Amino acid sequence: MSIDNDSQGILQGLKCPADVQDLDSKQLVTLAAEMREVIIDTVAANGGHLAPSLGVVELTLALLKVFDPAEDKVVWDVGHQAYGYKLLTGRAANFGTLRTMGGVSGFPKMSESRYDHFGVGHSSTSISAAVGMAKARDLAGKDNKVVAVIGDGSMTAGLAYEGLNQAGDLGSDLVVVLNDNEMSISRNVGALSQFFSRNLTKSWMVRFKKDVESLLKHVPKIGGDLAEYARKSEEAFKHFFTPGMLFEAFRFNYLGPFDGHNIDGLAGVFQQVRELKGPILVHVLTQKGKGYEPAETNPTYFHGVGCFEPETGEAKKFGPCALASYTDVFGETLIRQAETDERIVAITAAMPEGTGLNKFADRFPDRFIDVGICEQHAVTFAAGLATQGFKPVVAIYSTFMQRSYDQIVHDVCLQNLPVTLCLDRGGLVGEDGPTHHGAFDISLLRHIPNLVSMAPKDEAELAQMLATAMAHDGPVALRYPRGVGVGATPAESPEPLPLGEGELLRDGEDAVILALGSRVHPSLEAAVEIEAETGKKVAVFNTRFVRPLPVDQIVELAGRFKTVITVEENALAGGFGSAVLETLADQGVNNVSVLRLGLPDAFVEHGKQKELRASLGIDKAGIKKAVLNLFYE
Amino acid sequence: MSIDNDSQGILQGLKCPADVQDLDSKQLVTLAAEMREVIIDTVAANGGHLAPSLGVVELTLALLKVFDPAEDKVVWDVGHQAYGYKLLTGRAANFGTLRTMGGVSGFPKMSESRYDHFGVGHSSTSISAAVGMAKARDLAGKDNKVVAVIGDGSMTAGLAYEGLNQAGDLGSDLVVVLNDNEMSISRNVGALSQFFSRNLTKSWMVRFKKDVESLLKHVPKIGGDLAEYARKSEEAFKHFFTPGMLFEAFRFNYLGPFDGHNIDGLAGVFQQVRELKGPILVHVLTQKGKGYEPAETNPTYFHGVGCFEPETGEAKKFGPCALASYTDVFGETLIRQAETDERIVAITAAMPEGTGLNKFADRFPDRFIDVGICEQHAVTFAAGLATQGFKPVVAIYSTFMQRSYDQIVHDVCLQNLPVTLCLDRGGLVGEDGPTHHGAFDISLLRHIPNLVSMAPKDEAELAQMLATAMAHDGPVALRYPRGVGVGATPAESPEPLPLGEGELLRDGEDAVILALGSRVHPSLEAAVEIEAETGKKVAVFNTRFVRPLPVDQIVELAGRFKTVITVEENALAGGFGSAVLETLADQGVNNVSVLRLGLPDAFVEHGKQKELRASLGIDKAGIKKAVLNLFYE
Repeated sequence: MSIDNDSQGILQGLKCPADVQDLDSKQLVTLAAEMREVIIDTVAANGGHLAPSLGVVELTLALLKVFDPAEDKVVWDVGHQAYGYKLLTGRAANFGTLRTMGGVSGFPKMSESRYDHFGVGHSSTSISAAVGMAKARDLAGKDNKVVAVIGDGSMTAGLAYEGLNQAGDLGSDLVVVLNDNEMSISRNVGALSQFFSRNLTKSWMVRFKKDVESLLKHVPKIGGDLAEYARKSEEAFKHFFTPGMLFEAFRFNYLGPFDGHNIDGLAGVFQQVRELKGPILVHVLTQKGKGYEPAETNPTYFHGVGCFEPETGEAKKFGPCALASYTDVFGETLIRQAETDERIVAITAAMPEGTGLNKFADRFPDRFIDVGICEQHAVTFAAGLATQGFKPVVAIYSTFMQRSYDQIVHDVCLQNLPVTLCLDRGGLVGEDGPTHHGAFDISLLRHIPNLVSMAPKDEAELAQMLATAMAHDGPVALRYPRGVGVGATPAESPEPLPLGEGELLRDGEDAVILALGSRVHPSLEAAVEIEAETGKKVAVFNTRFVRPLPVDQIVELAGRFKTVITVEENALAGGFGSAVLETLADQGVNNVSVLRLGLPDAFVEHGKQKELRASLGIDKAGIKKAVLNLFYE
Repeated sequence: MSIDNDSQGILQGLKCPADVQDLDSKQLVTLAAEMREVIIDTVAANGGHLAPSLGVVELTLALLKVFDPAEDKVVWDVGHQAYGYKLLTGRAANFGTLRTMGGVSGFPKMSESRYDHFGVGHSSTSISAAVGMAKARDLAGKDNKVVAVIGDGSMTAGLAYEGLNQAGDLGSDLVVVLNDNEMSISRNVGALSQFFSRNLTKSWMVRFKKDVESLLKHVPKIGGDLAEYARKSEEAFKHFFTPGMLFEAFRFNYLGPFDGHNIDGLAGVFQQVRELKGPILVHVLTQKGKGYEPAETNPTYFHGVGCFEPETGEAKKFGPCALASYTDVFGETLIRQAETDERIVAITAAMPEGTGLNKFADRFPDRFIDVGICEQHAVTFAAGLATQGFKPVVAIYSTFMQRSYDQIVHDVCLQNLPVTLCLDRGGLVGEDGPTHHGAFDISLLRHIPNLVSMAPKDEAELAQMLATAMAHDGPVALRYPRGVGVGATPAESPEPLPLGEGELLRDGEDAVILALGSRVHPSLEAAVEIEAETGKKVAVFNTRFVRPLPVDQIVELAGRFKTVITVEENALAGGFGSAVLETLADQGVNNVSVLRLGLPDAFVEHGKQKELRASLGIDKAGIKKAVLNLFYE
């Protein structure tokens, strides 16, 4: 082989993924160290998912030592652990562009590489996709291998269970690697987490011991000490009660658990697995953040992280930032609400830190429930609570709330139950890209009867909207963006807003901007600049409510100005601007020209929020330009 | 007690659900027979879910013998088995109105009765809702019981797994009754179905035997015959390997299996269960269709059934009907397509009969996959197949496809994969009511980039659209209504339609109706009648494509007629008419008056399709009236 193992290292010398197969044990260990260094340095500079990717460096090498992704299919669940795989499959040279606009994606992506066999970002899709690939292989009469790599956290989602269940039923050749680090993003939850942990199932052992005792009564002539015999039976059977039982229930062959940081050992296992038939589960134990002390110590913080100093792991300071994030304001406001309203219960789906509910969890442990990566269950569980007079608040990122659509319709809104859905990361999330943008929630929820739908212009209004939701006896959706607000301090005791009423922030003469949520302030700034530069006076209306829409106010403004610009950080199709058009048509307001600004009819790629908003013309400059075009085109 | 047990029977004498607790064994058996008679007679007259409800008559009585639904919460999964419960909880007198407009709903419904603790219709929500109720009970310091009743079929859905997992984690008092009839709607699928069946888990027994043998080697001095000892061990341990193991993995206490048709026995079990703490699973074996020979013989047919002769079980004949259903035409066309295109694979989620794929399954058993009640998995599995060059067709009812929204966005459309989603029962389904109407799919799917979205005007066009989908190299959604078409015979080899092109079926002078799918023919008939009665000439355009919308044609028509009426059988918010408004605004077509007809901003109740369409003004008469109103208001 021709690995170019000079001063530039093994990694840069790899020509294709199959080159890994020619490396010896020592070279593989060296390569692992090189990969870690590149991953740490790149994430330190660009931010990203550090701890997951560090945990699977050896696993990735062992996989590529045995499976050739030019033929075999490798599906990474979620994909935030695939940085090492990217390095080994043609993206080492560009890896410095990770998560930057136009650069390497933070997730596997079919359009980026022929070795990314399935695009991911959301959790727990890998088994289902892999079963599809295995079925395709069987139908086509091919003999490539299909491998899904899934974390123990991802196993909590119903989709993973559905996939396992069919995999066992079909019986096709399929390898599922359970990457068990005893965590998802935060600590793992759910009854089954005991299975994926290193504990044996104690209740079975207890029952087993009883059975042994009862059996011994039926064996009259036994030599030796009875107690000694029972102890030996127990020893002998202990290995029977393993995590494997669960997977055997799904008709998988279970192998493991194995040390996930021993490349040779794992490669040996995979070599054997290659020859086995049917669905195989390989249980691999890894440490999240492995090989980087700060990440080993604090894997939750380093799960997904911003820029940091690689030597110390300390977050990079970019000057003082006095602004609170929407997430923080949400978490703090909910605590204050819950102090005076015992009916409030907070629910999240494996995101206590990400949704800002971790402080709520400390303050009200009984009234906080993390259901794991189970967005569907989170919403129906909330509906159950609401039937009994509670006011559940379900905080989930917009993009992940997509999983709960049916439960929102069928369990919450059809029964008009007072469940509040808090959609964090509504709009563009930035570097995580198209799988993670909250691009659709307004279109997704707007047509559901009974659901009040709001978006605040700033942090202070977020607090008011949360108060509004808590005061409303019906379902509410509240979406707010990723990142910091504008510095608007929430009131100590925010007052509920009147439903379906927006606010005219600035009057005008020549046109009106109907803005929603995060786009209100940029619209206002654009209007100020337009007046300063051209003398044209553009009114700006903070619409606040997508449902019920402030119909009377909108009709009045549209009738007065005849030129309406709607601005939103959501898909234009079926979104907020679309609701404005419906209202104007329904109210018989004709002769109005409506320009809608928002997200285009295409998936938005990754990049900084600021860059993306600029490129899509929904930042201050874009809004200004679009409005000026109307005046001067 | 004061059960009025005269000639009118026990059932009519019950004053409240708790009265069941005072009945003796003999009275309960008599009551079961009375309930069966009422259920059979009512469903024979009104249609409905017969076999599921017949199967749980004794289970229902045993539950009410022990639990009082005035205090305890009973959550029926799906709810199509709850007719007996309805009879015992205040709805016996009105039961003859079952599934008729304004009458008793075919599903539990909170607004119908205080004893319906959770509204249902979709599968697998019961455990999640019950866990919510149990948590609420604990927080409120109450001591009522919470019981979820779920079928083995419903257990295949990921949502049920998510619910079980959290139930075990919380450890709250909760009873889950597994109603095991070894079926869902059709035969059960999935690896785990072996657990819910009466088979023991053979692979474990095999491994266990090996372990016994190996153990015996380590016990040097044993009296008697070694083989005899091994046999005895096996006997003794056989009961260990039961369906209970799975539920014990979820930290449930498992009890069962029990005979589900022995009221006294079951009531005794429930009496014991009342006293137990923590999550309990009670495994009950029932026979679907029990007590009515035709339904026992053919439980799939009698799962949900139209009117029939109660004496024989034969479907009532309402005169010759030469019209094929959309479902039939879909199934037959797909077979023809698959004969010449080996890439086509058909997937359904527990609905081979309901989606018309049963014949496809017979013809191409390898290329047909029923994944069970796993709509999420169905779509991601299809995406996996599509990555390997196949053309999967996923046929699921519109209302159930709601569960797959995230997978449609994230796994199919983001990757632009050629998966075809066939949404049967798009629009109003009739008697099954609000949980089952396909009221939202157009709004739900319209904003997803890359997705072609179509609705045919008749059966012949459905066949063409399926051909269009098979010829298109990207994701497609195709929705068609429940019921028969208009008698348009599909072509033997239907030609693909040009994407984004509709057809002007009738030109006019005074207005144009842009109609979609099932609303095209009623629009045409309305236009004919309007001309005959008033001389006004209304053009009718069959839009065919919601995405890509026939923009040029619509702009031309709107510009020419200035009065546009859109008609669709979907929510108005974000729907087809909304897309027309967006297009007109984007294209700068002002001075056009647009009237949108469709489903209102409210959940539509149950009733006959015809009645519902009339009441909502989207049948021929309603369209005609709305258009005439425009002319003469």
